[in-house]
Order: sequence, then structure tokens, then C-alpha cells
Amino acid sequence: MKVGYLGPRGTFTEQAVLKISDISETIPFKTIWEVINSVNIGKTDKCVVPIENSTEGCINITVDSMIFDTDLFIQGQINLPIEQNMIINKAAENNEIKKIFSHPQGLAQCRQFLQKNYPNAETINVNSTADGGKIIKSSNEPCAAIGLCSIAELYDLKILHKGIQDNNQNFTQFAVLSKNDTTKSLDSQKISIAFSTNNSPGMLCKILNLFEIWNLNMTKIISRPMRNKSGEYVFFADLETNNSPVDIKNCLSMVKRKTSFFKNLGSYPVYDYR
Amino acid sequence: MKVGYLGPRGTFTEQAVLKISDISETIPFKTIWEVINSVNIGKTDKCVVPIENSTEGCINITVDSMIFDTDLFIQGQINLPIEQNMIINKAAENNEIKKIFSHPQGLAQCRQFLQKNYPNAETINVNSTADGGKIIKSSNEPCAAIGLCSIAELYDLKILHKGIQDNNQNFTQFAVLSKNDTTKSLDSQKISIAFSTNNSPGMLCKILNLFEIWNLNMTKIISRPMRNKSGEYVFFADLETNNSPVDIKNCLSMVKRKTSFFKNLGSYPVYDYR
Repeated sequence: MKVGYLGPRGTFTEQAVLKISDISETIPFKTIWEVINSVNIGKTDKCVVPIENSTEGCINITVDSMIFDTDLFIQGQINLPIEQNMIINKAAENNEIKKIFSHPQGLAQCRQFLQKNYPNAETINVNSTADGGKIIKSSNEPCAAIGLCSIAELYDLKILHKGIQDNNQNFTQFAVLSKNDTTKSLDSQKISIAFSTNNSPGMLCKILNLFEIWNLNMTKIISRPMRNKSGEYVFFADLETNNSPVDIKNCLSMVKRKTSFFKNLGSYPVYDYR
Repeated sequence: MKVGYLGPRGTFTEQAVLKISDISETIPFKTIWEVINSVNIGKTDKCVVPIENSTEGCINITVDSMIFDTDLFIQGQINLPIEQNMIINKAAENNEIKKIFSHPQGLAQCRQFLQKNYPNAETINVNSTADGGKIIKSSNEPCAAIGLCSIAELYDLKILHKGIQDNNQNFTQFAVLSKNDTTKSLDSQKISIAFSTNNSPGMLCKILNLFEIWNLNMTKIISRPMRNKSGEYVFFADLETNNSPVDIKNCLSMVKRKTSFFKNLGSYPVYDYR
């Protein structure tokens, strides 16, 4: 089983991949879109991508690719605690840190810490937390990267502060995606669906009422702009499935009838490592 | 009137600032958080920040800062069409482009174009679309930046492709924020509110029913993770205000009573330049 993930080595997604059994090969890709597309075009059998961070929210590109670009299904969700660390290069050991590199998510998750402790340092977006380590390693300026401690090992750098994320309960949900249709497995913990109403007032409310009628608990709702239709939204929702398979089936078929767009993204278990 | 904005010069936000009259000085800041905080600490009187892009959706940091970090009010919304352009440096005029630099939003808005036309080029996140121009100017490698045409002028670079955004109706909503309380001005076009329910099933539906009862049209709803309470959400909603001021007042006071957290972010006009 070939598994694609958001690389390079040393990222949080790589940690999530290590939780999956039955892997023959792991293949890192540079962007989330390339990871997801690798399954679509048969380069990999499965992939692992971040879908939501507890502090920063939805990872838009993951959700959009699932809704608009591919017909993949969620096989499972992996929740990992995210500890962000400040890693410094040689020059920063005795000098004031001038620049701090990380993925935009890494910088966002430590924003309050950075504002308080490094108000004068410039924060710089890079493609991954691991890339930050690579960049500061080759720099003569005093700079820092934010990410996993393993980045320090990987590039022989020093860890200055551990656990600098603003929220101590910071965690990320990763989704395992493949072409295997999981929509029929109605005895799993969670269902994800995407739907769009035809933008008439009160329609969203009517759909949520359907979940109420069949007693399905909606645990998340995210609105995303409908591609190429400005002002219209697609909703991405998670439902808890303590109900009978018949109720779930009836509810979803009613939701499908009452929406202008409907996609069942799969029914799947949650693996919580917090 | 001092107005803060997301700089440096040459960004889309600067274009939005130019639509405001009554400005004595414009002050660029490096991050959205610093822009918003500049009003909070009295360094500026007003600020202009992006709040949503029609392709990429909500700008999380803007919405979160308004909900959790400050008590600013929306004074008005400015809608600007966003044309993304590919700008190249000297080395790229006769060689294959190796690297493409832009703000994550710029890269995301042109993702399909880049996948199709530059599948082998590396895309690199930088802090602003204008920063991309600055970086490629000083590089000897063949590279490109994505952003406003004015970046090409600013750094004496060549425009290779115009209008490369995937969605031709691509536009960004900018919010003008200040300490001036606009919640009482009930004759404006739009109201933005933030609220949280106590996470019991069906509560969101009950709140949306209130909008139905008083005939307020909800034009947007975004869920954001509640800070420091994992699994709980805050909803950010836009309401259209064609209703009588009394209806609006009654509806919002009922929403406030039925929610565990409520914040009125202002009632304001929309300036549409599309």
C-alpha cells in the first residue's frame, strides 16, 4: 500500500502517516493538492492530509479538493496533539532573533507567544514547518523555525523553547483518503457530507431541521464559497452516527432531495491520540 | 485620519485603502494582526483588512481578531475585483520558470492555472504578493511572482500572463474597522454578528429559526473554533437589513438571550467596485 502525505520529512502529517498500518511505501508531496491528486491519478493508494486544526480551523484546500476536484472517500480520521517548538540556528544562540520561519499554520498557532516574546522579529511564511528548519540551517543571520522537535535533529539545530503553541489543547485532525467507497458502512462513528442549498433564505435551517428530525448530531459545519458562483456556499458537515443505519440512510436521502448539490464523503472511524 | 493596512505597498489591500476618503496618512503593517492591533492601541484611527475572498473563503485571522482580541466595529465593506498576474524576472525571460512566489492566497487563487501550465515549478509561500516581486527581483534563478501588475512597475519586472486567477469573478471583501460603535445604525445594508451556542444538538438550528421568524436574510455563516475550548465553535454571520429597525433590534436581542456568547460587530454600508 503506497501512502502519499504532505512532506517533506519532519512534518506533522508524517507523524500521522506513521499511525497507519499496512504501508509498503510513503511518498511525500509538496502541496496538499498534489497529495490528494496522487490518489486520484493512481500514483498512490491512500493519502493523509490535515483537515482541521483546533486553533486555526478548517484547512480550506483539503475540504475544497474533496468537494470539487476528486471523488475520494474518507477512510478514517486521526487526531494528533500538536506541540510547536522554537528551533534556532547557530547565529541565534548569542544574538537577537531577526526572522522566524514556519508554515502559515505554525505561525498562526503561536501568534500570541510570538507577539509577546519576539515583537520585533519578522515572521516569514514558508511551505512547511520542516522547510523552516532547512532555511535557517543555511542562514548566517540569527533566525528561528517553528515546528516539531525532530526538525532540530534532522538539521542539527538547537531547541530554544518547547510547547509554544497558544492553545495547550492544540490538535490537528488528519483525514485518510482513498477511492474505496465508505458511504455504505453505516456503523462507523462519523459521517462527512457536503451540500449546497439554492441560496433561498432559510434553506440551511430547513436542512438542519432534517438532522433534528432523525436525531443526527451535527458536530461541525463549515461554509466554503461555491466555485465559480460568487455569493453561493457549499456546506461541509460532520455528523455523529449513534443512530440506526436505517435512520441515517433515510435522513441523508432526504437531505439529498432537498439540496441542489449533495456529496457523501464517507462514513469512518476516528483514532484519537490526544 | 490615520489608516493602517496590510502592506507593503503594492498589495491588494492598499488598493482598497485608496477607496476611502478623509485620509491624512496610510501606514502599512506586516501582518493582519498588527494592522488590527494598531487601531486597538491607538496607533491608527481606522484600518482596512481583507475579510473574505470569493474563491478561497474566509480570512481566519481577521475574523478571529474581531471576535476574540479586540472590540472594534465594522464601518463599511469594500468589494474589489482581484486580478492575479504572473510577473517574471530577467532570468525567466529566456528560461523555464523554476520557482513561483506569492502570498498563500495568491497561489491558491491561481492553483488550477499553475497546475496546468507550470506543473514542474515550485510554489513558495511568502508574506505578501508584493514581497514576491521583491524576492524575484534579487534572484538570479528564473522565477515568477503572482500579484497586481503594479508590482511589475514597482520592481521593474515583466508581466508574462494577465488575469491568471482560476475564477473570473474572483473578488475580495475588505472590512474597514475602527472603535466607533456602529451597532446602533440600523438603517445600513448589512449587520455582522458572532455567536456561540452551548454545543447542544439543534441549537444552531434554533438560532437560524429566529432569523426566519423576524425575516432577516442570513447571507453568510462561517464557523470558527472557539479559542481554548476544543470541539466548540463560534459562528460569524452576515445579515441583510431590509427590515424595520425594530424587527432587527428584537431579533438580535432574542439571539443574544439564546446564545452563550454574542457580539454585534456593526451595521454598515457595502461599497461594491466590481
